[in-house]
Amino acid sequence: MSGNKEEVDPRINGIKTKIRVVPDFPKKGIMFQDITTVLLDPKAFKDTIDLFVERYRDKNISVVAEARGFLFGPPIALAIGAKFVPLRKPKKLPGETIFEEYELEYGNDRLEMHVGAVEAGDRALVVDDLIATGGTLCAAINLLERVGAEVVECACVIELPELKGRQKLKGKPLCMLVEYR
Amino acid sequence: MSGNKEEVDPRINGIKTKIRVVPDFPKKGIMFQDITTVLLDPKAFKDTIDLFVERYRDKNISVVAEARGFLFGPPIALAIGAKFVPLRKPKKLPGETIFEEYELEYGNDRLEMHVGAVEAGDRALVVDDLIATGGTLCAAINLLERVGAEVVECACVIELPELKGRQKLKGKPLCMLVEYR
Repeated sequence: MSGNKEEVDPRINGIKTKIRVVPDFPKKGIMFQDITTVLLDPKAFKDTIDLFVERYRDKNISVVAEARGFLFGPPIALAIGAKFVPLRKPKKLPGETIFEEYELEYGNDRLEMHVGAVEAGDRALVVDDLIATGGTLCAAINLLERVGAEVVECACVIELPELKGRQKLKGKPLCMLVEYR
Repeated sequence: MSGNKEEVDPRINGIKTKIRVVPDFPKKGIMFQDITTVLLDPKAFKDTIDLFVERYRDKNISVVAEARGFLFGPPIALAIGAKFVPLRKPKKLPGETIFEEYELEYGNDRLEMHVGAVEAGDRALVVDDLIATGGTLCAAINLLERVGAEVVECACVIELPELKGRQKLKGKPLCMLVEYR
């Protein structure tokens, strides 16, 4: 699960075959890794969740946070009995929020989190479908640490290692399933 | 689960106590039902998913579709072994799409679905966190029916019955957990 080719779980190859690569999205020259095709295969989607749940269920994670899509975080949170905290674009969360600015692969944006959702002492897992430049995950880590949570690890389905997003994670470990170079 | 007060599952009251009502969001005069506070309670979130899974697991549902947030559809799809199809705002899905226009409670929008994600003969469950005017769900039903799927039911955590969204569902049954008047 961490890139060691000699110990790759056989389920990971099944997941990789379901990821669709779409050229020129969202703009010309970008190869986009589309995970919606994984969701169309119940076994591949379940395997994806199971791989993370097996890794985290005995790690005393109290909160799972995910930015934007929320495809993987909620099922993981449900399975390990942690709360789920959505991190959202500006003006989407109805309650009082704190925010962090971040750089996207294709521009800038801001990530918001509800005040009170995460507390000092929470042990957090940060989930995202894909790590590119690491900007979103870095903003998520900053939000969680500002309120006193400990970020235990970041978990991504896909890593684009050439964009060096790992280096933006403030030393937090990253667990990923599939890499694209 | 369908509004019959004499047979309310005791889990539903627990879920309702976790929903936070935020006044004046997204604009003055609107009382917003915030389900992110349900996600902060692992039992209430699990109860929500379980109630739907118990209802649908023996109904031969082959696809679960959800628009926007994706908080409830993916866990339900995983538990009943169906594929999950996200319905998204314009320009978010990377592959070829079809779309439907719809009216929001606070404006207009367009919902897109990947071509090929749903096929003729699929039996579909449409999930949303909240039914207000029914515009989003109606667009979702139209998308699914255009490609030949049968929409078995719509499932929502919250219904605002005074907005009469049920009447926009083209005769499809609606299952909801909590209503706000």
